Amino acid sequence: MSNQALPSWNNGAAKSAILDFVARVTKEGGPDFVPPAERIATFDNDGTLWCEQPMQPQVFFLIDRVKQLAAKDPSLKDRQPYKALLEHSLKALHEQGKQGLMELAFATHSGMSEEAFDEIAKAWFASAKHPKFGRPFQNLTYRPQVELLEYLRANGFKTYIVSGGGIDLIRAFAEDAYGIPREQVIGSSARLRYELQDGRAVVMKVSELNSFDDREVKPANIGLHIGRRPILAFGNSDGDLAMLRYVKTGVGARLALLIHHDDDVREVAYDRDFRLSPLAEALDNAGEYGITVVSMKNDWKTVFAPGRAP
Amino acid sequence: MSNQALPSWNNGAAKSAILDFVARVTKEGGPDFVPPAERIATFDNDGTLWCEQPMQPQVFFLIDRVKQLAAKDPSLKDRQPYKALLEHSLKALHEQGKQGLMELAFATHSGMSEEAFDEIAKAWFASAKHPKFGRPFQNLTYRPQVELLEYLRANGFKTYIVSGGGIDLIRAFAEDAYGIPREQVIGSSARLRYELQDGRAVVMKVSELNSFDDREVKPANIGLHIGRRPILAFGNSDGDLAMLRYVKTGVGARLALLIHHDDDVREVAYDRDFRLSPLAEALDNAGEYGITVVSMKNDWKTVFAPGRAP
Repeated sequence: MSNQALPSWNNGAAKSAILDFVARVTKEGGPDFVPPAERIATFDNDGTLWCEQPMQPQVFFLIDRVKQLAAKDPSLKDRQPYKALLEHSLKALHEQGKQGLMELAFATHSGMSEEAFDEIAKAWFASAKHPKFGRPFQNLTYRPQVELLEYLRANGFKTYIVSGGGIDLIRAFAEDAYGIPREQVIGSSARLRYELQDGRAVVMKVSELNSFDDREVKPANIGLHIGRRPILAFGNSDGDLAMLRYVKTGVGARLALLIHHDDDVREVAYDRDFRLSPLAEALDNAGEYGITVVSMKNDWKTVFAPGRAP
Repeated sequence: MSNQALPSWNNGAAKSAILDFVARVTKEGGPDFVPPAERIATFDNDGTLWCEQPMQPQVFFLIDRVKQLAAKDPSLKDRQPYKALLEHSLKALHEQGKQGLMELAFATHSGMSEEAFDEIAKAWFASAKHPKFGRPFQNLTYRPQVELLEYLRANGFKTYIVSGGGIDLIRAFAEDAYGIPREQVIGSSARLRYELQDGRAVVMKVSELNSFDDREVKPANIGLHIGRRPILAFGNSDGDLAMLRYVKTGVGARLALLIHHDDDVREVAYDRDFRLSPLAEALDNAGEYGITVVSMKNDWKTVFAPGRAP
């Protein structure tokens, strides 16, 4: 166990649990050794790897997309749900719920190929800024978590994102921000359809939900995409509870972690009242389920990377 | 270009096309250079990486599974489609078509967790033998293809299987046979459902088709699982044509390959009349689509690994 590991984490129970777990599963010949091929770690994204307040960045992307569409078709400004979006009515947006917002997202950014979407997403990340922090969204990743991802990979882990967010939006920034390649991103997805356009084959995003990757769907999508039970998972809301329990109830050494956003100075303190992604059941039952709760306030020396966010 | 590369391939146009392509995409500073992260190669499995005659090994697995089930429930012996399966009626089986067989497969090996299925599949691979060659099915992989997979990985490629076969059956042997890890296998799949059983979380295979990974669905599933357009693809039937065209019509250096089973001495000569997976349209249009046809008879020095198959 290196003293240099995870410098943005304060010493304490959470950091010790991580360092002890990694030491055990990587100790060849030890009782808890896990071969590298089985060292799968899955991370939620919104609120676990980057800031999701006041709304998930995906929602800001959706608003900007609707603005672009309304510039071409002004009649959208008078129709719901576009009207609520264009008027920045946070209440109306929250009332859509997470799945409603995802469906709106698919309705507004489908009808194009995966590759065309990737260009739109990358252009957005290059110019959009968080309304409170005034920084690009991809610079609001949590420094301790980026360190943890790197530490796990240095110890032979394969790191995945398993998010309720749109799979292709996350893919547009995850490699730069987290070192996680596109094929290790699992998320909500539109149905995809192969088409020939003037002799060129493309995969089109169809205006139809394929998978809403939240709650019980997370372990099911892990089964589809990875086909192995991860040995470590990290989440921050009840939407991650099924994934955390799937990991924690596997045979052998397992670590399930949950960020508690209790730091109102450096970020935002919230849990059960955050309608878009509440944390209640997982927090209330963390002890019984063997989930390690990480306090942002106490366990993280730094929240955002210096020079990247306040 | 090493003279030692691909020793089981005869010198000729196909081998040159592969060696030239790999040299071009790996030459830093060259006009066709592709960064390692984008070096994705996708391979069909049945008939491309292993023998699919007289039927795909998946079908033999299905027959053996139905026998196991009929041992527990003898009434199955008098009911179709089980009757045809149990009587080894190849004609009746062929009449089901590839998708019908897949659906039968899901009906007979679902209702269990992914992990329980993996144990059943591994036990089958350990004992089942090919009816003609008398060897375990996983020993009927093509030696030139295993060499090609290794050669591509040695050149920074990430190798995937994209198969019409059941994803979890392939995962049970692909790592040992091909060096392809479970998470790099894409295939036909049953719907998956998260369940808590006595406090233990499991992912159950439900008796319902999630995706039949054939023809136009292959590129769509590549979009879902990988999120990048591969730069090399290898198939052997019309079921692979959409994937080959998706790869070949991408921007930049691309290689699409098609095995033609024209070797009746060392394997089986077949193409357009193989009802379970015909090759006709892809072969007839290979020139127009820029697909490199590989002759098993002329381009492969060896077909099966020595000591592993006749």
